[in-house]
Amino acid sequence: MSRKKYNVAVVGVTGAVGQEMLRVLEYRRFPVGQLLPLASARSAGRRVRFKNKSVTVRELTENSFGGIDIALFSAGGGISRQFAPVAAAAGCVVVDNSSAFRMDKHVPLVVPEINAVAAKKHRGIIANPNCTTAITLMALAPLHRAFGVKRIFASTYQAVSGSGAQGIVELEDQVKAIARGRKVRKSVYPHQIAFNALPHVDAFLDNGYTREEMKLENEGRKIMGHPRFRASSTCVRIPVYRSHSIAVSAEFAKPVTTAAARRVLKKAPGLDLLDDLDKNVYPLALDIAGRDNCAVGRIRVDCAMKNGLSFWVVGDQLLKGAALNAVQIAECLV
Amino acid sequence: MSRKKYNVAVVGVTGAVGQEMLRVLEYRRFPVGQLLPLASARSAGRRVRFKNKSVTVRELTENSFGGIDIALFSAGGGISRQFAPVAAAAGCVVVDNSSAFRMDKHVPLVVPEINAVAAKKHRGIIANPNCTTAITLMALAPLHRAFGVKRIFASTYQAVSGSGAQGIVELEDQVKAIARGRKVRKSVYPHQIAFNALPHVDAFLDNGYTREEMKLENEGRKIMGHPRFRASSTCVRIPVYRSHSIAVSAEFAKPVTTAAARRVLKKAPGLDLLDDLDKNVYPLALDIAGRDNCAVGRIRVDCAMKNGLSFWVVGDQLLKGAALNAVQIAECLV
Repeated sequence: MSRKKYNVAVVGVTGAVGQEMLRVLEYRRFPVGQLLPLASARSAGRRVRFKNKSVTVRELTENSFGGIDIALFSAGGGISRQFAPVAAAAGCVVVDNSSAFRMDKHVPLVVPEINAVAAKKHRGIIANPNCTTAITLMALAPLHRAFGVKRIFASTYQAVSGSGAQGIVELEDQVKAIARGRKVRKSVYPHQIAFNALPHVDAFLDNGYTREEMKLENEGRKIMGHPRFRASSTCVRIPVYRSHSIAVSAEFAKPVTTAAARRVLKKAPGLDLLDDLDKNVYPLALDIAGRDNCAVGRIRVDCAMKNGLSFWVVGDQLLKGAALNAVQIAECLV
Repeated sequence: MSRKKYNVAVVGVTGAVGQEMLRVLEYRRFPVGQLLPLASARSAGRRVRFKNKSVTVRELTENSFGGIDIALFSAGGGISRQFAPVAAAAGCVVVDNSSAFRMDKHVPLVVPEINAVAAKKHRGIIANPNCTTAITLMALAPLHRAFGVKRIFASTYQAVSGSGAQGIVELEDQVKAIARGRKVRKSVYPHQIAFNALPHVDAFLDNGYTREEMKLENEGRKIMGHPRFRASSTCVRIPVYRSHSIAVSAEFAKPVTTAAARRVLKKAPGLDLLDDLDKNVYPLALDIAGRDNCAVGRIRVDCAMKNGLSFWVVGDQLLKGAALNAVQIAECLV
């Protein structure tokens, strides 16, 4: 069975996450038979590199999925809503990086280290979680299993890669413009992101939170199978290129010590414990960029609540927050 | 009495905060008689501008304070510990921006909008609070008076100006080095600050928090006169030049609505309410830089606790977080 090859489509292959998906499929030696890079008509005809070959990008249409086993989607919610059901109907298993199906009760929402088993119950579509949620849960879910999380208060320090390649370009362009004394132009973000902090990721909801902020609670509940989990967060975009960092204060049902928490986190798959304050060791966005594993540090007993623990967790937004997790889900299928 | 002039010494006048102190004394038309700029022997002989005149920086010695009415100190804790008592003994009132005396029970710790009356009880030294604490309390203290704060969970997004002029230079130099493909050098921060987020401000304590993080609780208690106030925070340095932003989730004794909170915050002195999500209006570090007033926005009922409110507060670290507050304290004395 491990010799079987799978025909894999990557939808949105020219985007920041799509590009990472190709790279991850390759370095994780996913058993790709035929690779089908798909994108909008605008990008069709471009070529992408995969396993030292140049492959032509095809236009995504309703007829794209014949003979494809697995389709990794990362082209936004609209494309997913339109084409993921088509791909599933054609016999494909879709791993969808958009938010379109995440809260659909017939669609598993999976972080393989946490709930790989849920992937098996798919009906053709499996959802990849929000990036901040996936990274936060890499540390929180193991702690939850050990101590029973009740609620968290979290603040995020999110990289511009979360807005795709254009977010990266916008930060680069603004930094250059400032260095040259030119006017700063903005199109991706409503305000200058260079040398600034924007408490605004995704759209605002009626309750004053953003969609991004509520995903942490809603997707966290689903992934951990914990419907009473509560999460209050402030999601903030900062001038970092690639990794998201999250400051978390978590309240647990059971007493928790730093020693017990460390034991749990040290064993957690996909997570590195980087926590040596004497040596100024704690996870940093720059260091984690390009790494599969997330990292946790600054672990301390929370000083403002009973059974509380505070920590700092960092993950590469394009990898564990998107492409890596999607490929890991695909690995659950083979 | 308002015609009286005061001889004012500024200790650490060549630093980032010292420079701002001169500017603030000038634009707030503080009744300065003689200005005495003081610094280390290394900086003595340099000249600073004050009210369109060039004034020579003198070396700080134990004999510096004869005839001086008010001394604004911003040269670090060591200098304050050594010279503030000397200045006070010479009949000066010292307003000290370091952490040296903040928790001394004989030294008032003052944010004039919150506890101006405490300034009157000084014995020669009045302490200026930690920057993050002062800015956070500009929004929190009015809410506390209305609803009774029990505890907060806070995360900070702190500017490099908090490390003085050298912090600003380090960020500028690193950004330039990266643009030119050169090696990034660091001396102020233990890790690269450009395009990164460092969960490390001030020294680590045995409880796993930093000094900066515990200041929010300890100084907050003293300034609000609220010994049971609890604050768990993560203080993070980000690549922003000048203003600090703080994400706060606060639990109150009394029920709180966004409407009631807005009414309170709208009337709070020294604070602007910038909160119109439909128009993407919320406080931003870049916009607040150079402004006296702090600003609060993203006000919402906290989704993870009873009687909870979350908000985002921003203030210029060099102004309300340091020089402005110090001059405002001096204004309480005249």
